[in-house]
Amino acid sequence: MPKLLLHTERALNNIQMMADKASENGLKFRPHFKTHQSHEIGNWFKEYPIDGITVSSVSMAEYFARYGWQSITVAFPLNINKVGRINKLASNIDLRVLAVSVDALKITEPVIEHEVGIYIELDPAYGRSGVDMNASSDIISIIDYIKASKAFRFEGFYMHAGHSYRNRGKKELVLFSNALVQRIKEFKKEFPYPICFGDTPSCSVLDDFTDIDQISPGNFVFYDWIQTQIGSCDPSKIAVAMQCDVVTKYENRNEILIHGGAVHFSKDSDMQAVGLPYFGQVIDQNWEVIPGVILKSVSQEHGIIQCTPEYFDQTIIGESIHIYPIHSCLTADLMGHYYTLDGQHISHLSANYK
Amino acid sequence: MPKLLLHTERALNNIQMMADKASENGLKFRPHFKTHQSHEIGNWFKEYPIDGITVSSVSMAEYFARYGWQSITVAFPLNINKVGRINKLASNIDLRVLAVSVDALKITEPVIEHEVGIYIELDPAYGRSGVDMNASSDIISIIDYIKASKAFRFEGFYMHAGHSYRNRGKKELVLFSNALVQRIKEFKKEFPYPICFGDTPSCSVLDDFTDIDQISPGNFVFYDWIQTQIGSCDPSKIAVAMQCDVVTKYENRNEILIHGGAVHFSKDSDMQAVGLPYFGQVIDQNWEVIPGVILKSVSQEHGIIQCTPEYFDQTIIGESIHIYPIHSCLTADLMGHYYTLDGQHISHLSANYK
Repeated sequence: MPKLLLHTERALNNIQMMADKASENGLKFRPHFKTHQSHEIGNWFKEYPIDGITVSSVSMAEYFARYGWQSITVAFPLNINKVGRINKLASNIDLRVLAVSVDALKITEPVIEHEVGIYIELDPAYGRSGVDMNASSDIISIIDYIKASKAFRFEGFYMHAGHSYRNRGKKELVLFSNALVQRIKEFKKEFPYPICFGDTPSCSVLDDFTDIDQISPGNFVFYDWIQTQIGSCDPSKIAVAMQCDVVTKYENRNEILIHGGAVHFSKDSDMQAVGLPYFGQVIDQNWEVIPGVILKSVSQEHGIIQCTPEYFDQTIIGESIHIYPIHSCLTADLMGHYYTLDGQHISHLSANYK
Repeated sequence: MPKLLLHTERALNNIQMMADKASENGLKFRPHFKTHQSHEIGNWFKEYPIDGITVSSVSMAEYFARYGWQSITVAFPLNINKVGRINKLASNIDLRVLAVSVDALKITEPVIEHEVGIYIELDPAYGRSGVDMNASSDIISIIDYIKASKAFRFEGFYMHAGHSYRNRGKKELVLFSNALVQRIKEFKKEFPYPICFGDTPSCSVLDDFTDIDQISPGNFVFYDWIQTQIGSCDPSKIAVAMQCDVVTKYENRNEILIHGGAVHFSKDSDMQAVGLPYFGQVIDQNWEVIPGVILKSVSQEHGIIQCTPEYFDQTIIGESIHIYPIHSCLTADLMGHYYTLDGQHISHLSANYK
């Protein structure tokens, strides 16, 4: 069966690296747990000063609250259809959610039973969610609304610069992240409230966190192949790899068939130089990258590995190979559990044992 | 919460349509259950003469064997690492798997304890799995090997023409499928053994199944948005839709944010005319397509709907909208269960309650 292997030592190093970065820069650390979604891995963070955690859904908040986490941000705009569950959570823990408009707050306020912390989500030109950072009057309206409300407590701003994922290479990423910090510096002059800042690429390369108050990256716990292409890390930091059986070899096309497809890896892809997508990077038994050997296509359960002639020759039917996933968050969500290199089982919220 | 709705009437009609097509053409019907992965939906097929079923993994075969299915093809090449489970299954049911090389059969044969049916998988130029249809001497070697073996029973050929998914429009698809049938006709002159033929697009449009003996399409039970683009069906046949909450509206860009992302829909996409991908097609409460309103992007939990001005105006925060998924197999696998339109719960093997 395809297995998701977890390199514990690398994950622990990644956690320490980011926790140290937060401490050294005087930042509150509210790591995002949507990547690992595991209460065991969550416990590994408890060795460091954690202000609270961040999750991407109410279900995930419920899961981690059951495992004793007392301050949780659901980094998703307030959804009135979840108010029953939000009320229950907010009666037990310091619950925080995002707001992106007065409208959504207004319809929700009458049914809120316990004070909920609100971050206003800012959109730094990513274009997914959040209030445009330049829309000062909209931002002022939301702040005023929150401050006047008994249901809500103003926590400041939340920002996920997801467009950092469009960078390719560390140099480009550093320029991008520094420009973002400059923009935050200006913004803070107008709105001097705490800012919680998210994405793994920026948090990985930034040295100057002036005017940022809290960080909530998530992917860094494992990293993945796309992060090496973005410029966030080198491959020796990737802490998860898929283990897949070699099922057959196709000599005439230098390809091998593995058991491992879209229901294991996800369909997230990176782009080859030739303009074709690929779905994973093959590594050897020591987790070293094998150049030119990639997961070139996936269907539901099938994966095709494009080989170099040397790799093709040395690969044996029935043995297994290891592959860095393109996007560890989606792969972990699909796999639903992990095995450490010494065979220990680590659980995941989705518990989807394929 | 995002929900996967199941339009029972449409699914039942789809099953009847394909079962009738099999009967009328004198074909054995071995439907693929990888799309629905549900023992309840599996039962709906029992009203028709079913020769057996097809699945894409040993886990799925184990699941359906538990629910009484007695003849199951695992439409995946034999994997020596699964022999323990294959032996157990083959001791109870008529188990069939695929073979693509003598090598894989040779290493597996010594550990097979109960006879296993073998289809030789043919590759009709799809390039994923299977023996090249033109490689007669390879095919002869595999047949000879199977026939001489006591572990294996020769069942004929299995063919999944997955490249049928590259067609766009019924006319193109019909030409493609008819050419394939011509190729099979020639092949049968050389190799007069049963052929089990798979893909939903071809099976949906073919009238002439001469020289095909068995069919094993799967996706037709639900169809999905990509099938309407390929030319397999019209949208009134699509039997599943996602129901997602409207979380907020972005007036300045005519977009709305829904709760529904890559962990619900999958990242499978179709291409817009402008060369950008999209991840679902919005429909109204009567399951009628709303032209120009699409799921334009997904991240882990977020989805962004690109609206027409009319649709934007009429959409209300807190209400839910319905969306045809691009690829129902992956969406169902991610969602892990269904709700019928009258609120009944239908289970799925992955049981991944998000």
